[in-house]
Amino acid sequence: MSASPSPPGPAVYADALLLTQDDRRRVLRGDVRIEDGRFTHVGPNAPRDGATVHDARRFALVPGFVNTHGHVAMAPLRGVADDRDLAGFLEVLFAVDAHRTDDDIETGAAMGIGEMLLSGTTSFLDLYYGEDAVARATERWGARGFLGWAVLDPEFTTQTGTPIDNARRFVERWRGRPRVTPLVAPQGVYVCGRETWLAARQISDEFATLCHYHLAETRKEVHDHEAKTGRRPAQWLDEIGFLGPRQIAAHAVWLTGAEIDALGRHHLGIAHCPSSNLKLASGGCAPIVELAEAGAVVGLGTDSVASNNSLSLLREMHLAGLVQKNQRWDASALPAQRLLDLVTREGARMLGRGADLGSIEVGKRADFSLVSLEHPTMQPAEPATIVSHLAYSAWEEAIDSVFVDGEAVVRGRTLTRGDFSEVRRAGAEVARRLWSQRPGAR
Amino acid sequence: MSASPSPPGPAVYADALLLTQDDRRRVLRGDVRIEDGRFTHVGPNAPRDGATVHDARRFALVPGFVNTHGHVAMAPLRGVADDRDLAGFLEVLFAVDAHRTDDDIETGAAMGIGEMLLSGTTSFLDLYYGEDAVARATERWGARGFLGWAVLDPEFTTQTGTPIDNARRFVERWRGRPRVTPLVAPQGVYVCGRETWLAARQISDEFATLCHYHLAETRKEVHDHEAKTGRRPAQWLDEIGFLGPRQIAAHAVWLTGAEIDALGRHHLGIAHCPSSNLKLASGGCAPIVELAEAGAVVGLGTDSVASNNSLSLLREMHLAGLVQKNQRWDASALPAQRLLDLVTREGARMLGRGADLGSIEVGKRADFSLVSLEHPTMQPAEPATIVSHLAYSAWEEAIDSVFVDGEAVVRGRTLTRGDFSEVRRAGAEVARRLWSQRPGAR
Repeated sequence: MSASPSPPGPAVYADALLLTQDDRRRVLRGDVRIEDGRFTHVGPNAPRDGATVHDARRFALVPGFVNTHGHVAMAPLRGVADDRDLAGFLEVLFAVDAHRTDDDIETGAAMGIGEMLLSGTTSFLDLYYGEDAVARATERWGARGFLGWAVLDPEFTTQTGTPIDNARRFVERWRGRPRVTPLVAPQGVYVCGRETWLAARQISDEFATLCHYHLAETRKEVHDHEAKTGRRPAQWLDEIGFLGPRQIAAHAVWLTGAEIDALGRHHLGIAHCPSSNLKLASGGCAPIVELAEAGAVVGLGTDSVASNNSLSLLREMHLAGLVQKNQRWDASALPAQRLLDLVTREGARMLGRGADLGSIEVGKRADFSLVSLEHPTMQPAEPATIVSHLAYSAWEEAIDSVFVDGEAVVRGRTLTRGDFSEVRRAGAEVARRLWSQRPGAR
Repeated sequence: MSASPSPPGPAVYADALLLTQDDRRRVLRGDVRIEDGRFTHVGPNAPRDGATVHDARRFALVPGFVNTHGHVAMAPLRGVADDRDLAGFLEVLFAVDAHRTDDDIETGAAMGIGEMLLSGTTSFLDLYYGEDAVARATERWGARGFLGWAVLDPEFTTQTGTPIDNARRFVERWRGRPRVTPLVAPQGVYVCGRETWLAARQISDEFATLCHYHLAETRKEVHDHEAKTGRRPAQWLDEIGFLGPRQIAAHAVWLTGAEIDALGRHHLGIAHCPSSNLKLASGGCAPIVELAEAGAVVGLGTDSVASNNSLSLLREMHLAGLVQKNQRWDASALPAQRLLDLVTREGARMLGRGADLGSIEVGKRADFSLVSLEHPTMQPAEPATIVSHLAYSAWEEAIDSVFVDGEAVVRGRTLTRGDFSEVRRAGAEVARRLWSQRPGAR
């Protein structure tokens, strides 16, 4: 388990098109200076003393993207269960998952983290078991991981030991690391009873960690929970006293107005995952405009490659915008600037890191991408169009380099921390072994 | 105006993963041999006599994609009118368009064609005026263009001369070219009266050309036409005797069951453009499953960068699948194989070229891409997952090389026919000049 290397020496990226995503959403030509992994100057004429100076004229300098929901270790399961609803999808996944080893998880996480970095995502929020392996992969490839250990009622788990104890120990083990932030992650009302939810909240309160969970993803979930408890999932979580600070709910598709109000009142984070919701025909479109108006903080998540099927937030921005416009018959809904906010400053705020991530500002951590202004999909490359191009048109290959704490983790479309082809070969082996466990494969 | 060069000598691409898209949708390891721009062998052990042999082991060999609706010359207008409905969008576009020169059209077309080739699209169907310039760009960059000269009632046009005469002369000028197929393109019921529609059909019958038009894109179009004629657009086109063979309607969003039957009865081509429809909040989702069941031939179109905002059919496949699944609450709707069919064999069939385009089969033209099996988004790269990866996950950068008539028009992610950076610079000039004509820009 290797710690992150110390940040490189002072550096200046000069004369870039700075897409600051600050409070005024300034887009300007200028420099950034980076010291000890943070921006110390943003704007024209950065001091160059003692710094390595990089000519960034041909690039937009864009905050690193924040992916607010996923299961990164599932990368080898891409394509394993397409064109099925959530129930049919989970039937395949659970059959395969039971055969996963810790090494498989680490290999899968490395594949997925590589794909995220190559599409400009520097921070990601994950929900899975065996998160130690994900944490190792996160540190190895240099990403910033917010890693939630999945908890569920003991009778439903394949984990060794009690999930809630495993989660507590995971949080204790990984607290205080620069690139890994551990947290607790109740899986959902279908496998978590009242006691598990409240124990998760207890861990979140005790360690001041985030708490991340699935909520109101499908009609079936809402129907089954209502049949069992007489309450809809969000309403029930409110009534049992679970809802609280530092919580991030993924999906949040099937909500009543009263539930939206409750989530807003608690300023919940909402990880909107349009690709996954549409692909699994969850049957709706999360009311993110209303949620934001009610006080929730909204970000975008890719969910896993098994239901998306890529991990690119560029694609997710495009889709999120189109889905809201279509749903509301309103082409001005979720405009380009708002989409870019979701994957930068809003995502960072949701993770409780609004003060040091999510925008290009002095004092913040230097998590950013250099996006080529010469790529076909970035044309015409003008300050007035750059936000639109990122939200609606840019292909991933336009992202030349990606930095975390000022360190280049992708340079010239290549991961810098290791050889991805080794990961790919290992992933192919994992995939072959796990796929052979699909129902009907034997 | 340069003609296409003669096809290169015999070539073998050896040991590729062949995604044939033939009647049985075979996916197999094997070779293709190409002579005079056509496949002469598909499968194991191609004869290698006199051929240049390329090792294609690391690639999937995939039919070139067919984009069935767009306005390629609008490439410099990306981002000019985001987050507006069709009426607000057209207000901006028409103000800008009036200032377009022939050179602007050729530059814009070169930008757009480059972007299409780089995303694996080899054939495209276009609707615009000034199509001579688009035809020149098509031949210069080596794509296969099906180019429709826009016709509309004389009182609505900015064309010099009568649009219908211009279209006839355009068809006469460009017939019989290998890479350019000219056709006639009535713009839509909002600017075309009965006489224009029937004159367009007359040209299509006389020259046996395709006829391409916008149909039932927005509620406003349907409402206005019904107010004027007492008939809905598709119903009216049927009643005036316009509907017939070789016709391709773009959008086809707002249709009744009776109209779907009418379009199916005439075996119309339907260019489904989900990105554009959703982004402009046209407010619906084309009933392509019902249209196909009724006898129509369905393909996918990107529409222009002004309303998409990219020209990638990879993204359009993903979106088309997700939108149908969501709309129908049915995750099995439009599965991956069907999506790939839409952009290959169905698109070719719609263009009347099912016999020589759209699949990897002996006798067909060698329009194809080599897609890297080592790209992160193609993992795990197994014969069983390859169709899913193309439909749902592959990024454009996975497409290494693209061939038309066996000629590499893209090699190693680079256009072979010229220097794209010159096009980009010229496009930037066009954009600056045209953008200054936006309402409110002065």
